[in-house]
Amino acid sequence: MRKPVIGVMGGACVEQEVLDIARELGGLIARCGWVLLNGGRNCGVMAASARGAREAGGTVIGILPDRDASQASPDLDYAICTALSDARNLINVLSSDVVIACTGSAGTLSEVALALKNDKPVILLGLKVGAVFEEHRKRGLLTSAATPQEAVERAASLINA
Amino acid sequence: MRKPVIGVMGGACVEQEVLDIARELGGLIARCGWVLLNGGRNCGVMAASARGAREAGGTVIGILPDRDASQASPDLDYAICTALSDARNLINVLSSDVVIACTGSAGTLSEVALALKNDKPVILLGLKVGAVFEEHRKRGLLTSAATPQEAVERAASLINA
Amino acid sequence: MRKPVIGVMGGACVEQEVLDIARELGGLIARCGWVLLNGGRNCGVMAASARGAREAGGTVIGILPDRDASQASPDLDYAICTALSDARNLINVLSSDVVIACTGSAGTLSEVALALKNDKPVILLGLKVGAVFEEHRKRGLLTSAATPQEAVERAASLINA
Amino acid sequence: MRKPVIGVMGGACVEQEVLDIARELGGLIARCGWVLLNGGRNCGVMAASARGAREAGGTVIGILPDRDASQASPDLDYAICTALSDARNLINVLSSDVVIACTGSAGTLSEVALALKNDKPVILLGLKVGAVFEEHRKRGLLTSAATPQEAVERAASLINA
Repeated sequence: MRKPVIGVMGGACVEQEVLDIARELGGLIARCGWVLLNGGRNCGVMAASARGAREAGGTVIGILPDRDASQASPDLDYAICTALSDARNLINVLSSDVVIACTGSAGTLSEVALALKNDKPVILLGLKVGAVFEEHRKRGLLTSAATPQEAVERAASLINA
Repeated sequence: MRKPVIGVMGGACVEQEVLDIARELGGLIARCGWVLLNGGRNCGVMAASARGAREAGGTVIGILPDRDASQASPDLDYAICTALSDARNLINVLSSDVVIACTGSAGTLSEVALALKNDKPVILLGLKVGAVFEEHRKRGLLTSAATPQEAVERAASLINA
Repeated sequence: MRKPVIGVMGGACVEQEVLDIARELGGLIARCGWVLLNGGRNCGVMAASARGAREAGGTVIGILPDRDASQASPDLDYAICTALSDARNLINVLSSDVVIACTGSAGTLSEVALALKNDKPVILLGLKVGAVFEEHRKRGLLTSAATPQEAVERAASLINA
Repeated sequence: MRKPVIGVMGGACVEQEVLDIARELGGLIARCGWVLLNGGRNCGVMAASARGAREAGGTVIGILPDRDASQASPDLDYAICTALSDARNLINVLSSDVVIACTGSAGTLSEVALALKNDKPVILLGLKVGAVFEEHRKRGLLTSAATPQEAVERAASLINA
C-alpha cells in the first residue's frame, strides 16, 4: 500500500503570511504520515511547504518544470525532472490523492482547473476562485478550509472515504 | 511572415447557443485571413468553430489530446496528435497569438490560466471567470467581448499592436 | 480529407551534403502535394527541409520544443509552440503519416524509436541504425531509401496502401 | 542530499531470463541505498526490477504513462501519474542520475536515445544497440555491463565521479 499523496500548490512569489501557512501545512501533512508533492522549485509555496514537511520528518516529492534539479528546493527527497515547463502542472495534480491550493496566481489556478477537470478533490486554503468552479463545489469536489489544520482534517476525510 | 493564429477554446459539451457563437466566431476568424487553432476534437466549441472557419474558406489546426486522429473534427486542415491528454492545453495557448475563450468548464479555465501565466492575451466570449484573474485584467491581458464580432475586432487590435 | 503529412527528422548539426538532401526531399514532398512536418527550428535538417518545401510552394508545420517561435525557421507556415523540450519528439512522429529520417544523432534516433513503438512507418534516408530495429524491418515498418526520390516513392506507396 | 536515482529501463514483454536479471538488478540497487526509478507499470522489466528492489527493502518510483495508477506495479513506493503516454520516457531519463537499459524494444531504445541526447550516462545490460551510438560510446557516456553486479559497480563509479 502506497502512502497517501497530498499535492500542495501555490504561488512562486507570495507574501510571508502565505509562506508561513504553507510551511505549517507541510508539517501537518508530514505528521499525518502522508507524502507531500509539489512543483519542486526553491521558491514560494513550493519551498515553504517542502521545508515544513522536511522539518517534521516527512517525505517530499518535487515535480520540476526543468530538465535538471538545479532550481530544486533543498528539502526534496525526490526530484522528478520533466523539462515540460507548465505542462508538468498536470502531473502535479494527477499524482496527488488530494490537492490543497494555497494563495497563488494563474499557475495555481491552472492546477486547480486541471485537478477538477480530472475529478481530483481540491481544498482551497487561501486561493480565491470566486464563483468560477461553482459546479464542482456543488459536487463536493471543491471545498475551502480556513486553516492548515482544517485543510488537513478535510484531506483525511477524503482519503478515508 | 506566418499568418496570425487565433486559439478558440471552449467546452466539449455546451448548449446550442454556444455552438452557434463558436461557429460564427470561426467564420469571422477565417474571413480575417487568420488561422484558427483549437483542441481538434469532433465535439463542442472545437467542432463548431472549426466548422465555421472551414465554411468560410479558412484554415484550421487541431491540437488533439489523442495519439491519433480518430476523434478529430472533419473540418481540420491539420491534425496534431500529441498523446498528451490535458497537457496539450499548454500547446493550444502557446501556439496562439490571441486566445478567445468561449463558454466552457474546468478544461477551458485551465487554458485561460495557462495563457495568462505565459503572458498570452485572452478575450472572454461567454466564459465567466468572476474576479479570479483581476490582476491580469488590470494589465490588459484579459478582456471581455459581448459578441464574436467584438472579439474579432479586439483580436485585430492585439495583433496589430 | 486532410493532406498526407510527411515527418522529416534529422540532425540539428549536419554536413552540407545532408542539408542538400534534406532540401531536395522537402521540395519533392511539396511537389507531391503533401504537408512537411518537422521540429521547426532554424538549423540543420529542420531548416533545410523547410526551405526546400517552401521553395516548391509547399506547406510546412514546425513542432517547436520551445515556448515561443523565436528560434523557428523562417520557412514555416505554422509554428506549434510546445515548451516540452525533447518530449515534443513524440508529437512529431504521431502527427506524421510517414516518417523520413535523414542523418542525425540521438535525437533523431529517439524519433525513429518512438515512431516504430507506435507502429508508424519509418523510411531511413541516411540515418544509420545498424541492426537495432531488425524486428521492425522484418515487419516492413522500417525501410531504407538511397535517395530523396526513392524515399518519396516509398512514402507514396505507404500513403496509398 | 538526495539519494542517487538509478533509472532501470527495459521491455514490457520480455523472457523469463530478462525478468530474472531485472529483479536481481533491482535488489542490488536497493542494497546500495539508491532509489530505483522506472516506468511503473505492472509488467516486464518494470515490474521485475521494482519487485527486486522492494524485496531488498529499497525505494521505488514509477513514472506512469497513464492518468492514474490502475496499471501500476504493486511494488512502487511512489506512483507519478503523467497521462503523457510515451512522452513520459523523457521524464524517466532526466530524473535518473544513471540509466541502466535491460533488454527491450523500441520504447527502451527511445529512452536510451533521449538519455544520451541529454548527456545522461547509460549502461547497457542486455539491450543491443549495435553501432548506433558509437559517438556516445567514444565519449564514455554509453557503456555495457555483462551482469547486474557489473552494471551496479559501473553506476557506483559514475555516481562517485
